Amino acid sequence: MTDYPEFEDPITRPRYTGLPSFMRVPYVENFQGVDIGLIGVPFDGGVTNRTGARHGPREIRNQSSLIRKMNQATGIFPHELCTVRDIGDAWVQKPFTLEGSHKEIEGFYSRVHKAGILPLSAGGDHSITLPIFRAIARERPVGLVHFDAHCDTGDDYLGSRFHHGAPFKIAVDEGLLDPKRTIQIGIRGSLNDPDVWKFSHDSGMRVIYIEEYFEMGWKKVVKEARQIVGDGPTYISFDVDALDPVYAPGTGTPEVGGYSTLEAQMMLRGLQGLNLVGGDVVEVSPPFDPSGNTALVGATMMFEILCLLAECVDHRKKMQ
Amino acid sequence: MTDYPEFEDPITRPRYTGLPSFMRVPYVENFQGVDIGLIGVPFDGGVTNRTGARHGPREIRNQSSLIRKMNQATGIFPHELCTVRDIGDAWVQKPFTLEGSHKEIEGFYSRVHKAGILPLSAGGDHSITLPIFRAIARERPVGLVHFDAHCDTGDDYLGSRFHHGAPFKIAVDEGLLDPKRTIQIGIRGSLNDPDVWKFSHDSGMRVIYIEEYFEMGWKKVVKEARQIVGDGPTYISFDVDALDPVYAPGTGTPEVGGYSTLEAQMMLRGLQGLNLVGGDVVEVSPPFDPSGNTALVGATMMFEILCLLAECVDHRKKMQ
Amino acid sequence: MTDYPEFEDPITRPRYTGLPSFMRVPYVENFQGVDIGLIGVPFDGGVTNRTGARHGPREIRNQSSLIRKMNQATGIFPHELCTVRDIGDAWVQKPFTLEGSHKEIEGFYSRVHKAGILPLSAGGDHSITLPIFRAIARERPVGLVHFDAHCDTGDDYLGSRFHHGAPFKIAVDEGLLDPKRTIQIGIRGSLNDPDVWKFSHDSGMRVIYIEEYFEMGWKKVVKEARQIVGDGPTYISFDVDALDPVYAPGTGTPEVGGYSTLEAQMMLRGLQGLNLVGGDVVEVSPPFDPSGNTALVGATMMFEILCLLAECVDHRKKMQ
Amino acid sequence: MTDYPEFEDPITRPRYTGLPSFMRVPYVENFQGVDIGLIGVPFDGGVTNRTGARHGPREIRNQSSLIRKMNQATGIFPHELCTVRDIGDAWVQKPFTLEGSHKEIEGFYSRVHKAGILPLSAGGDHSITLPIFRAIARERPVGLVHFDAHCDTGDDYLGSRFHHGAPFKIAVDEGLLDPKRTIQIGIRGSLNDPDVWKFSHDSGMRVIYIEEYFEMGWKKVVKEARQIVGDGPTYISFDVDALDPVYAPGTGTPEVGGYSTLEAQMMLRGLQGLNLVGGDVVEVSPPFDPSGNTALVGATMMFEILCLLAECVDHRKKMQ
Amino acid sequence: MTDYPEFEDPITRPRYTGLPSFMRVPYVENFQGVDIGLIGVPFDGGVTNRTGARHGPREIRNQSSLIRKMNQATGIFPHELCTVRDIGDAWVQKPFTLEGSHKEIEGFYSRVHKAGILPLSAGGDHSITLPIFRAIARERPVGLVHFDAHCDTGDDYLGSRFHHGAPFKIAVDEGLLDPKRTIQIGIRGSLNDPDVWKFSHDSGMRVIYIEEYFEMGWKKVVKEARQIVGDGPTYISFDVDALDPVYAPGTGTPEVGGYSTLEAQMMLRGLQGLNLVGGDVVEVSPPFDPSGNTALVGATMMFEILCLLAECVDHRKKMQ
Amino acid sequence: MTDYPEFEDPITRPRYTGLPSFMRVPYVENFQGVDIGLIGVPFDGGVTNRTGARHGPREIRNQSSLIRKMNQATGIFPHELCTVRDIGDAWVQKPFTLEGSHKEIEGFYSRVHKAGILPLSAGGDHSITLPIFRAIARERPVGLVHFDAHCDTGDDYLGSRFHHGAPFKIAVDEGLLDPKRTIQIGIRGSLNDPDVWKFSHDSGMRVIYIEEYFEMGWKKVVKEARQIVGDGPTYISFDVDALDPVYAPGTGTPEVGGYSTLEAQMMLRGLQGLNLVGGDVVEVSPPFDPSGNTALVGATMMFEILCLLAECVDHRKKMQ
Repeated sequence: MTDYPEFEDPITRPRYTGLPSFMRVPYVENFQGVDIGLIGVPFDGGVTNRTGARHGPREIRNQSSLIRKMNQATGIFPHELCTVRDIGDAWVQKPFTLEGSHKEIEGFYSRVHKAGILPLSAGGDHSITLPIFRAIARERPVGLVHFDAHCDTGDDYLGSRFHHGAPFKIAVDEGLLDPKRTIQIGIRGSLNDPDVWKFSHDSGMRVIYIEEYFEMGWKKVVKEARQIVGDGPTYISFDVDALDPVYAPGTGTPEVGGYSTLEAQMMLRGLQGLNLVGGDVVEVSPPFDPSGNTALVGATMMFEILCLLAECVDHRKKMQ
Repeated sequence: MTDYPEFEDPITRPRYTGLPSFMRVPYVENFQGVDIGLIGVPFDGGVTNRTGARHGPREIRNQSSLIRKMNQATGIFPHELCTVRDIGDAWVQKPFTLEGSHKEIEGFYSRVHKAGILPLSAGGDHSITLPIFRAIARERPVGLVHFDAHCDTGDDYLGSRFHHGAPFKIAVDEGLLDPKRTIQIGIRGSLNDPDVWKFSHDSGMRVIYIEEYFEMGWKKVVKEARQIVGDGPTYISFDVDALDPVYAPGTGTPEVGGYSTLEAQMMLRGLQGLNLVGGDVVEVSPPFDPSGNTALVGATMMFEILCLLAECVDHRKKMQ
Repeated sequence: MTDYPEFEDPITRPRYTGLPSFMRVPYVENFQGVDIGLIGVPFDGGVTNRTGARHGPREIRNQSSLIRKMNQATGIFPHELCTVRDIGDAWVQKPFTLEGSHKEIEGFYSRVHKAGILPLSAGGDHSITLPIFRAIARERPVGLVHFDAHCDTGDDYLGSRFHHGAPFKIAVDEGLLDPKRTIQIGIRGSLNDPDVWKFSHDSGMRVIYIEEYFEMGWKKVVKEARQIVGDGPTYISFDVDALDPVYAPGTGTPEVGGYSTLEAQMMLRGLQGLNLVGGDVVEVSPPFDPSGNTALVGATMMFEILCLLAECVDHRKKMQ
Repeated sequence: MTDYPEFEDPITRPRYTGLPSFMRVPYVENFQGVDIGLIGVPFDGGVTNRTGARHGPREIRNQSSLIRKMNQATGIFPHELCTVRDIGDAWVQKPFTLEGSHKEIEGFYSRVHKAGILPLSAGGDHSITLPIFRAIARERPVGLVHFDAHCDTGDDYLGSRFHHGAPFKIAVDEGLLDPKRTIQIGIRGSLNDPDVWKFSHDSGMRVIYIEEYFEMGWKKVVKEARQIVGDGPTYISFDVDALDPVYAPGTGTPEVGGYSTLEAQMMLRGLQGLNLVGGDVVEVSPPFDPSGNTALVGATMMFEILCLLAECVDHRKKMQ
Repeated sequence: MTDYPEFEDPITRPRYTGLPSFMRVPYVENFQGVDIGLIGVPFDGGVTNRTGARHGPREIRNQSSLIRKMNQATGIFPHELCTVRDIGDAWVQKPFTLEGSHKEIEGFYSRVHKAGILPLSAGGDHSITLPIFRAIARERPVGLVHFDAHCDTGDDYLGSRFHHGAPFKIAVDEGLLDPKRTIQIGIRGSLNDPDVWKFSHDSGMRVIYIEEYFEMGWKKVVKEARQIVGDGPTYISFDVDALDPVYAPGTGTPEVGGYSTLEAQMMLRGLQGLNLVGGDVVEVSPPFDPSGNTALVGATMMFEILCLLAECVDHRKKMQ
Repeated sequence: MTDYPEFEDPITRPRYTGLPSFMRVPYVENFQGVDIGLIGVPFDGGVTNRTGARHGPREIRNQSSLIRKMNQATGIFPHELCTVRDIGDAWVQKPFTLEGSHKEIEGFYSRVHKAGILPLSAGGDHSITLPIFRAIARERPVGLVHFDAHCDTGDDYLGSRFHHGAPFKIAVDEGLLDPKRTIQIGIRGSLNDPDVWKFSHDSGMRVIYIEEYFEMGWKKVVKEARQIVGDGPTYISFDVDALDPVYAPGTGTPEVGGYSTLEAQMMLRGLQGLNLVGGDVVEVSPPFDPSGNTALVGATMMFEILCLLAECVDHRKKMQ
């Protein structure tokens, strides 16, 4: 497109130029040769309060132009380890029913999974992790490192099982998620029902409330997370409401009193070497984000997860 | 609550105080003795692009504290003519299906209608007018003065008949709306399909595109509107996207190039004396409204319609 | 209002619906049977720089719909322990004189106090704590746990003794506040006069500057606070400018470099079991709060204090 | 300050540089030799609803850097006709009483008046025009061209005669304003009391409601304004809420449905040749003005009035 | 990408999905077969006051998802008449010199021109029209319909001839623009130098000041524009500051008192049938546009111009 | 200007009044007798991504009215120790070339330096530190305590050596900066090139990455900083992007995961007693700062540095 060979790599062009793909990687509609697919899921039909997460993928893409190629802290250079592409949106044709929408999303991820692509997704509300699991975890349940203010293992609410506060209960019920290999970090906020997250406890998930988190410090939390998920296949799900609302005001269910972005980055980096099968960053809601910082935070967390996934891809390639 | 008799009327208290009911009228849960009910419909499940109208009723209530008791331009004093109350929200228990939601909304309005209350509603998205019609227009079809950038007589879209671009087609199909007594004012914007509003034309609705509107001027438009709806029962539906987006940026489907709020006020006042059965102001979406002006505009249009409805109530009482 | 018995409790309805009372508790104008009254004080006539706190109660009410029924961290379920109601605003009829306004506010709180209600208030500027004290502390001076960036024990300023930087000096002068049982946490910011907070020191208040706070850590601070106030009657006053401005940008006198909301929550929870007579959260100024987070923070701090007050009510009932 | 002789005139320097005086004219504390004084009145103690106008002068100064030296439409070059200076703020030392504040403001303007300076002021709320009149109209009552949504001739409200809705009634009562030589343009909005503006009518002011305005068109309005004020001493008071709120959202009492800025400019230019004694632009409230446009509009209206005043100064000099 | 044949056309997918190309047309890097190229020019190095227009193309692309396929007012269906593509950004590798940047931009457009593509561009500041002219008007000077608040025919300013206030003077000097076939519509604002736009007058351009515009009305203006440019090759340049700032607050040099978007649309549509060689919409500056409306307005004006260009392409094809 | 002797000191007047000089100190154009000059550098021509820092000085001045006279934490009273003045802006006449602009800025600082004034500057982008060094460090290289997310020791980028990512490399090359006496604190963010900050390491600068910073804690960092710069002449450069973006969203190149403002204040105070020759706070970009907090943070950091500089002036005076 340009005459400047040194700028052929779009990631190195001036950051305010061009169409914003995730982290300015090439956008492709053909899945061939892709190792890691960056995917948007512009769906917020599972939200029970403030919507807007449907606009998340676009604004995360926009802000992600601030992300560069390598991770200064860990030295990981994902684009040297594997092929990373923006493979577009798992958009929903018929958004007016929650279950139908999930079916459509599952369809997209099944194609991704069949193509051997590790998915790294930008939501959308947290209900989307369920259809992703249905596409990628049918063979065997996955473990989960789950950053969130809420356990999201709730029951029926507002007449539906499938809202954004329940995906992980259903995932366990469907045999997609191994609760013994699940850790939930940062849980807090007031409750309407003391038993709302009972399923997490009863099923054997490790729930780290924010108060315990602060007593332990992030290093011990990471250590425990590694022990819990072990070396089985593991997924990382990052709900931006895990963070204190000052870092992520643009979200549907903010809960005052969370951890910081730097702590989150440290924890994510601490997961290096796990056997990862995918990840997502969800609940970025741009209409509630006047400064755009929530989307930038979302893009940054995606980049941290990308580095982890890239090492897995590289490791697996070498193992072959 | 206070010791100041002159402030017993809540409308006269300082405007930043108290819980914000619509126009600071008393909030009641008992419908008895109410002539006109101000109702919120916090539902945006019919939106096909930018959501947020579920937050409309609350923010319109908030901004409506700027509205006072009488209409300076027309001299109408609604609170002297009849009993106006905020009767709460037609909220939806199970928002995850569009048709079920409409059923719930219809249920609320059926109770309102049975109580002999004229409903004046704040949306929510435009799909809510359909269940309102189902509650109040079953006996005979109503006429309609419809302010909008879109005809909202579309067909299936994104897998549903019931989205916010289609209520008036379905209303005609169900015999609730008389297309011959329907006028649509301010239609504009680009189209994906030249026939998208064909139903309006085929069914005999009068469609005034924005270009024709500007040629005619608001006075002739009002005159024609009065001729079309005649003296049969008539409903007023005001979608804030009828206005130019500078007056109403906080809306789901803004279309550049509309009329002004003053013109809208003039037209509404020009409808004085019609045989009105209700009205609504829809598509105020606060997350897209940084200055709050859209909600203030919505509240102002509600007040103009309230004055018209109050005269009808008064007239009917006198006729009895 | 609805046909859904499981939603009769307004706190469990969808959070964007209805008129926003504090934490969606019922709004009552009759004080009978109320144990804890949530009260707005929409007054900012004592502000010396940026106004807007008059809009605080309304926006705190709005954001407080995000608060649910029980405290997940402490297990306190205030609504099971006692009757909590939104009892409206202590609004001011004649806001143009500071002293007259305070008189009116005092009048409202005297009625609250006489009704045996524990007041939990949302300001308004910090000058409002003085008339609250005049209503509830006449019998004996109270102790105070005071979160703030400023001691608010200043002298005359801009021609008045009664501005928002002075309530606690006057309260001591009037025998309403026991300085020996007063602790002020988070003091910082530049000064125009080295002696501006001299009264705090001279009268025996314990002043914890932000630097000392960070050396001590919140646990020791809480321990000392408990020792200082002892088991006498104690009030909690939380000025949101105690927090770093990133947590509470919407305030009149922001001071860079404060503690976090989580630390504040921890400290508040650490006050469990004190002999509390009321509390307030002040200086939320919505016009300076584009994201709404300050009001959400204010609502959250109110909820933490509510849980403490509820336990006191319960304890006293059991003692009777 | 610089080495560039062609930039010695601060008005021609890059517009984002330097301390923002009004329209980048020199700021002086010495009144000698000044013909027209640009003055800020950072006072909003007379506001009955949304405050913030105290921040108006500073933000109008800031935005006024976009104003250049001459009026392209009329060819008037104020800085060639006379000496225009920013003479600072009529700030208030003791803002906690409305009457005392007005006394202080009057004191400032008395000095200005004694120095033979024509004042052009930026409010502040509309109550400030009263003390200005007290300083400059004691010798004989002035006429008034008054742009506003409200007549501001109200009675006692919230316990005070001196709030921002009443200055012109008091001014007539005190013999400072000639109601027969007063025209009020753009009046509209709902009312709590049908007689609230009765004083305007009874005293003989010409009140042009917005509806009549639109029937007449701005040219006839200007013609009538000129006839009414005649060639006696006349003051121009421009409340930005005269404009539709889309042009001036940042104001305390917005009323939907006003005229445009261009119409206002045309009307102001139409007042060329009147015998002017001063002017003001009031009720710019920056906290409610996210885009800054209200302040820019305020600065623009000040510039239009400045051009009129400059011609008067020039004319009077030539007459001597 | 999807399984839904009816959604293969990206323009018909849900509007919040996917990477935002201009109006959701396909993005291509290969120019072959393209009739009209939509191009971003993310450059604001010619700005003399508020920058930010470099972010214009991206935000116009984002908001342009609200544009659909055909023009309801004129019936023009550009995508049926010719091949329209987003051909990316004419981004600048070395933005630190104005002349070098222009050289780079010219290089991009030379390739576009050589490929026989009609360019429709989104700026960027107005200086970009100069390098566009250098690429497309070398063979013969073009005529110009120029919507703007400023003539942009200024001289050296801040040490440069090439800033955003001067492109059309240089274009005439270089023989690229025929001043006799140039009309400038909407000129207004204060001036630092009475002769700043002297070149427009001396060279024979038709300058329509905003005051004359309002006297004439848009229909006569269009008529005169058509007479002036005749049937020679003509370019349309639309600076959003031509509009009143309420329609386009997000711009570098707002001037209070312009025309409306609807008037602009009417004028653009009135240019149907001209012999057009390209067009641009410039000076959209997203950092100053909190509601996003300026970018939506920019996208809408691009669509109006696109429809005109598409008819030209179609006409020329038929002529061949 | 006023009649109130106790308010003659402008710093003690109400904070929303007057023209905003830095920290409300007197503004002077004459350098005589000034010890410390507060200077704005409204230049952002070195920015490689989001501009807007040209508006930084004005908005920092505006927010700095919240700063008072003395430092409560350290007891330093700068205005008692020396004469502090706002000496205006080092504005640029010809901003269209980066090198010429730097030449102009250098010229201004040379005059400041010749007058014996210690400069404390508000940028502008970080490229401005280079011309400041050229003016004040020609006699001998200075040491540097550098707070930043980026080392700013990069090479050519976008065709220029002189952008805002490179000043300290050039300063070393030109013998103005002693790399052995340089410490960079808070470095983080993704990289496009692993060697981008190689120069820092190769030249012997001490680079403290954010991860190491958090391991060490601010106290050890300060200790090491003191050891590194020793008692030679030292400069403090504070880029607000050193802070986490929640504290400083209004900046050109935000990097998620930084330290807090309180930590920064602690570190700055820890530098008491160094042999300081100047300081700056850069990269505040108001268009990206909806709440204004970034500018307030910038002003606060300037005040901390001012206190350090004032002690140096005092110490040197006593040494004479």
